[in-house]
Amino acid sequence: MTYCIAATLEEGLVLVSDSRTNAGIDNVSTYGKMHAFDTVPNRKLVLLSAGNLATTQAVLEQLHRDKIKEAEINLNNVDCLSAAATYLGQVSVEKQQQHHNAEGQSAFDPSASFILAGQIGDDEAGAYMIYPEGNSITTSQNTPFLQIGEIKYGKPVLDRFMNPDRSLDEAARCCLISMDSTIRSNVSVGPPVELLIYRNNSFNLNEYYCFQDDDKYMLNLRRFWENKLQEAFSQLPPLDEQFSKLLAEKL
Amino acid sequence: MTYCIAATLEEGLVLVSDSRTNAGIDNVSTYGKMHAFDTVPNRKLVLLSAGNLATTQAVLEQLHRDKIKEAEINLNNVDCLSAAATYLGQVSVEKQQQHHNAEGQSAFDPSASFILAGQIGDDEAGAYMIYPEGNSITTSQNTPFLQIGEIKYGKPVLDRFMNPDRSLDEAARCCLISMDSTIRSNVSVGPPVELLIYRNNSFNLNEYYCFQDDDKYMLNLRRFWENKLQEAFSQLPPLDEQFSKLLAEKL
Repeated sequence: MTYCIAATLEEGLVLVSDSRTNAGIDNVSTYGKMHAFDTVPNRKLVLLSAGNLATTQAVLEQLHRDKIKEAEINLNNVDCLSAAATYLGQVSVEKQQQHHNAEGQSAFDPSASFILAGQIGDDEAGAYMIYPEGNSITTSQNTPFLQIGEIKYGKPVLDRFMNPDRSLDEAARCCLISMDSTIRSNVSVGPPVELLIYRNNSFNLNEYYCFQDDDKYMLNLRRFWENKLQEAFSQLPPLDEQFSKLLAEKL
Repeated sequence: MTYCIAATLEEGLVLVSDSRTNAGIDNVSTYGKMHAFDTVPNRKLVLLSAGNLATTQAVLEQLHRDKIKEAEINLNNVDCLSAAATYLGQVSVEKQQQHHNAEGQSAFDPSASFILAGQIGDDEAGAYMIYPEGNSITTSQNTPFLQIGEIKYGKPVLDRFMNPDRSLDEAARCCLISMDSTIRSNVSVGPPVELLIYRNNSFNLNEYYCFQDDDKYMLNLRRFWENKLQEAFSQLPPLDEQFSKLLAEKL
């Protein structure tokens, strides 16, 4: 499994991804899911991937080759993020179809999802989620984040705290907490956790960090959050006497 | 959709369920999913249901009829909770199969899941989750809760706080927080929320409460939890200077 998040803030982008892949519960490997492309100046594009590893690798390879051989459409010449997402969707569908009808593979699922984030020229920085079918959506003022992979465990914390006016630092912490909850509840999502902070118009990807399992900051964050939640839980308003009197006899 | 939780504590059981059902997003209704059976003395059985509403209603009806007509196996004569779960599983599979092969219904899914909880005679109180296939599992010391329906949004809070030695009051609050997170993240799970607390060897189901959407206690609980989380979030350790220095240039 996989869990990746992209948040679009007023100040820029925050991307977070885990690094665990598995082909069955007895075949677990570590693969980073955050990929940056070496493009022409004035554009920065980063891809997060989830789903079938063969498909995501084939897609990455194709994007790379199209760029090198200067294909008619490639990441160096698409003129906006939405066009890049459409192009990526086409490549993804093509790669999935190559293996879809292999015989005797009824349980085989070549599908993959992607988040493409970055900035092209004078356009605002943004992020698109590309579905296995090749279509895509972007973020909105009300929902300034996208998720792929194992999205549910970590969604409540994003629903609560992610707003476009959060600072990049706050948004990054929010994503890390969301990732941590997911790692806790699903063993197929795991470290190292990659974090990238992109500041609008910087065209610079150097605010990157890879947290290993025993990373001091991650342990600290986890412990702090855990303690605060324990504290909050222990103070929850009790089902008091008034409540007991209200008990109905429906059953 | 649906969300139901059953927790088995040292002091007894806590059951919580929502009341929203939908057949497509444009056909939403309110149906309670917590059902108690009027059985012979010295046994109390409560059923939580998720999945196809026609199936769950047909199963309930059959259990009721078997009991009335004193069938060879019925809820009044099964001698333990595990036997009751097996019986329920058989009825459930039978009801699902009646509709499974209806023609022209490719997207139709008659499957349903159940949690059967309660106490029979001198046995300890307990809970079983019955899969659509009819087989079942119970709780353990390490995992003292069962969930059916939309289980993921509300699982992190159960993973963190649910232990067998929690008081019934604490466990109930934990389940209500889990339910509240789920309602927040999935519109197809909704109030009223039903809560039942069963004390071991009481053979009494009168600690029941049905929280409407505007219930004062629920609002209070939600607001308190929200505020405490906001407070904790605002105090999370920042990605400090030391961290900035550690930024790698992998990308």
